[in-house]
Amino acid sequence: MKFYDCATAPSPRRVRIFLAEKGIAVPTVQVDLRGGEHLKLAFRAINPEATVPVLELDSGLCITDAVAICQYFEDVRPEPPLLGVGPEERALVTAWLRRIERDGFYAMMEAFRNATPGLKNRALPGPVDYAQIPALAERGRARVAEFFAMLDAHLADRAFIAGRSYSIADITAQITLDWAKWVKLQPAESCRHLWRWHAAVAARPSAAA
Amino acid sequence: MKFYDCATAPSPRRVRIFLAEKGIAVPTVQVDLRGGEHLKLAFRAINPEATVPVLELDSGLCITDAVAICQYFEDVRPEPPLLGVGPEERALVTAWLRRIERDGFYAMMEAFRNATPGLKNRALPGPVDYAQIPALAERGRARVAEFFAMLDAHLADRAFIAGRSYSIADITAQITLDWAKWVKLQPAESCRHLWRWHAAVAARPSAAA
Repeated sequence: MKFYDCATAPSPRRVRIFLAEKGIAVPTVQVDLRGGEHLKLAFRAINPEATVPVLELDSGLCITDAVAICQYFEDVRPEPPLLGVGPEERALVTAWLRRIERDGFYAMMEAFRNATPGLKNRALPGPVDYAQIPALAERGRARVAEFFAMLDAHLADRAFIAGRSYSIADITAQITLDWAKWVKLQPAESCRHLWRWHAAVAARPSAAA
Repeated sequence: MKFYDCATAPSPRRVRIFLAEKGIAVPTVQVDLRGGEHLKLAFRAINPEATVPVLELDSGLCITDAVAICQYFEDVRPEPPLLGVGPEERALVTAWLRRIERDGFYAMMEAFRNATPGLKNRALPGPVDYAQIPALAERGRARVAEFFAMLDAHLADRAFIAGRSYSIADITAQITLDWAKWVKLQPAESCRHLWRWHAAVAARPSAAA
């Protein structure tokens, strides 16, 4: 088994936190995104989508999606559960995970990739070049602010985003918030429920992953 | 249990096909998207995201995401399996489901919502109005063409998109292709593997859902 990672990228960090919570260690290969290694033929033979993370199994199957990789590890090592327990909580965690991705993580990616000079023509991940769209960067910033306000209100009376314990929904929001600092789109200080939740998840040992 | 549906919308159709394959009938309420019923306070009390589908459980929990609803039904009624069997196939199905959504379904949504006169300021689903971005419609059309070419090549030697049987990955591609007809973004006739696969999935009784 081999894990293709990039230490500075938010998507593979989602898997790293997940693995740290499970206590699983996987042999890891760093992919140099800054140097364009993911776009070269050798890596595209592993993942035609030219993205990390990728989990290569001993069977040869390459799982090329962060959530699918997490689901694989939940199936083979159920404890501690990070995708919810029982049909209702599992559905709730999945719905929140997807909402956080769509309205938070992807919105921030739109804001970042469409406005960063070094990513000209790299407005989307993947093998195809797409030009930046400045209006999309602007919309992304507005959506991120909406998202943080929504999540702050949601966390007013909750310790965790979905269900009774820490889950992949928390991990997804956590990498989004930590990335927000890096791209200078952090929530307002007035989002005190969100910041209280963030202090709690940041104090878990897995946050160092 | 109650299913909030809209007979003409592609997202809830994903759940309807899933339920038809499982042989599950759920009391259904039609939400009038064209008339803006999803944006009114009564519906937003059920789903603050102002989207369909929603599954309201007897416990009161509302599951507000199509994939989370499907996962719920897979958990409570595993047969026939539609999310894959065993950790590897399950991961493969999830990775393909998400790739099809991201590069196919959402790209088509960008093309459609950013160019349709009746959706001015409704460039995204949800409660917040966002202006159309013409460049995003154009990029969406280019991405949809890339996506269909990729899927056609993938299906050259396969009966199903991921794993050994029909799955939620096929359903997601199926609703995307059927919607493509409606928004006039259909694959080229030369995509013969894709069209052969489509004829096979369209012949399943569940396609009428």
